[in-house]
Amino acid sequence: MSDGNCQSDVNEPPCAKKIKKDEKNDNGVAEPVLDLKDFIPSKILNNNTNRKTVCVQGNFKDKSGVALVILEKNAFKEDELDSEGYFSAESDLKTFFQNDIYGNFECFPKSSINGVKTTIIYPATEKHIAKFSQQEVHIIQETSDCYNKLTLPHIEKEQFNLQWVYNILEGRSEQERVVYDNKCEKEGFVLVPDLKWDGLTKETLYLLAIVRQRGIKSLRDLDGSHLPLLKRVRDEGKKAIFEKYKVPGSQLRIYFHYQPSFYHLHIHFTYLRHEAPGIYAEKSHLLDTVINNIEMMTDYYKKATLPFTIREMDTLFNVYETNGYVQKIKPDIKLIDK
Amino acid sequence: MSDGNCQSDVNEPPCAKKIKKDEKNDNGVAEPVLDLKDFIPSKILNNNTNRKTVCVQGNFKDKSGVALVILEKNAFKEDELDSEGYFSAESDLKTFFQNDIYGNFECFPKSSINGVKTTIIYPATEKHIAKFSQQEVHIIQETSDCYNKLTLPHIEKEQFNLQWVYNILEGRSEQERVVYDNKCEKEGFVLVPDLKWDGLTKETLYLLAIVRQRGIKSLRDLDGSHLPLLKRVRDEGKKAIFEKYKVPGSQLRIYFHYQPSFYHLHIHFTYLRHEAPGIYAEKSHLLDTVINNIEMMTDYYKKATLPFTIREMDTLFNVYETNGYVQKIKPDIKLIDK
Repeated sequence: MSDGNCQSDVNEPPCAKKIKKDEKNDNGVAEPVLDLKDFIPSKILNNNTNRKTVCVQGNFKDKSGVALVILEKNAFKEDELDSEGYFSAESDLKTFFQNDIYGNFECFPKSSINGVKTTIIYPATEKHIAKFSQQEVHIIQETSDCYNKLTLPHIEKEQFNLQWVYNILEGRSEQERVVYDNKCEKEGFVLVPDLKWDGLTKETLYLLAIVRQRGIKSLRDLDGSHLPLLKRVRDEGKKAIFEKYKVPGSQLRIYFHYQPSFYHLHIHFTYLRHEAPGIYAEKSHLLDTVINNIEMMTDYYKKATLPFTIREMDTLFNVYETNGYVQKIKPDIKLIDK
Repeated sequence: MSDGNCQSDVNEPPCAKKIKKDEKNDNGVAEPVLDLKDFIPSKILNNNTNRKTVCVQGNFKDKSGVALVILEKNAFKEDELDSEGYFSAESDLKTFFQNDIYGNFECFPKSSINGVKTTIIYPATEKHIAKFSQQEVHIIQETSDCYNKLTLPHIEKEQFNLQWVYNILEGRSEQERVVYDNKCEKEGFVLVPDLKWDGLTKETLYLLAIVRQRGIKSLRDLDGSHLPLLKRVRDEGKKAIFEKYKVPGSQLRIYFHYQPSFYHLHIHFTYLRHEAPGIYAEKSHLLDTVINNIEMMTDYYKKATLPFTIREMDTLFNVYETNGYVQKIKPDIKLIDK
């Protein structure tokens, strides 16, 4: 039920055994010892300057096979913001400039508080490389006609498996996680914490409402007949979240993704200040706006041109490329002339 | 022309003089020397764990007045990802766990490549403290009626000064920065790099189109009569950006903010992969969607309910609070019961 955040997928493999460096495993064989000084970088696959993460491809000296090293600057820990940590005599300060009340510096804190989260994948497969490589992304303006001729046949052909959704709705899975359940087959829904959320921290609150009615693939299928369902999800969802987590409705971002990650209607609830993945204008549609659009024009989502983003590696990209709606980036124009 | 990114406002004061620590100024008086070891922290105003920034309030030993220290982990510099930098013998590696092909570590690189961008504001005013404090934010659903009765009178009362916009349009300011200029008074516009952008790096590309026609305050004022203007901005803006920066239209996010930061119609152009501030669904409206909405219903933006986000400290919040549309967060329900 999670919308694919690469980093966390890799950083938290299921059932991770805690094995120390050089420690012997059950067979008495020493685990392979990897050291960054033996890493020979060959290519930077991705450098996110906002989140301060980078992924480097390379290999280890005297070892065959490709390795990936993913580095991520740590967030500030509040207990290091004191005279033992950043504000100690060990912090070296280099001045860039000082102007009136503003000063700009670079601080070099002692190494022990300035760690960098490091993930090594070795040996890495082609799939790992593709996953961590910066992908060329495009916006496609999907007209009603494009949806019917190109997107819909693609959705039907791919036949996404929705069994896990039905398992939740029918009470066979994840029942202990259910926050709210309205059992009406037409207007009911189940509210569960998203897998990306720890279920506790308000700052990253993230729940999903999964409607009980089957066959509503996405936003595109909505019309005036769904207004009671949509209003119920909004009003009962807000109420349940306020009762359980004390976050008021005015601080919730309640939205659909288009395209969604699976084609059974579901609605995201996140804390407004949480920069969750995929909340950008080209991907997310606020539930209130959807309700308002349908109230103004019952067949709004049948007629509207809806944008969606797509990576060049996605099969749907090929469909739109073949039909002349979008072009791959030519490698020789990837850099700005300076 | 920048849409208020606190960090960059403060880090780039206009006409910053480069003065080195201990250097004497024009009057022969030594600049005050600030050192982090003398900083006594009292309160963490904001800790952004995504972007790895933190703002700490406190004071300097033996000095009166409040100081703010803003720390931001630096992004990875590509020339430090080698055997002299992160992959050197000086990088110390602590193992968290190793499981099959996945290993999780903490790396402690040599201090000199692991700087932290540091801004000190001293003495800081109440306004600085408010600006850097984490603010309670709410979404308001602005109906057509709310706009006319509450928002519009507020905009008219505040009388935002637009002289700097007219200076650009009339060729009195920033002419060397203009990327494209269509001088038609009705359908023309000026395209300039946003102040947040360095004008070179594709990854953070950010330009603004400012329309020549005066009196269009925002999205709310648009109707069928503006379609030629809007299409011209879209088509000529895309063309100019492709010619100058080689970024194709399908990789541009082209959008309005609502509410905008100033009430003279302008359109943002950012690189699709750039996580620019304010690109979230509750704040940004894609130009293509706006055009499509008006084509479907000429008075769409007169009739629609439009969401906008607002901080409790903003004067417009008071207007909506007084009229019962939103409530301040009560301090005692700020935390989730664990």
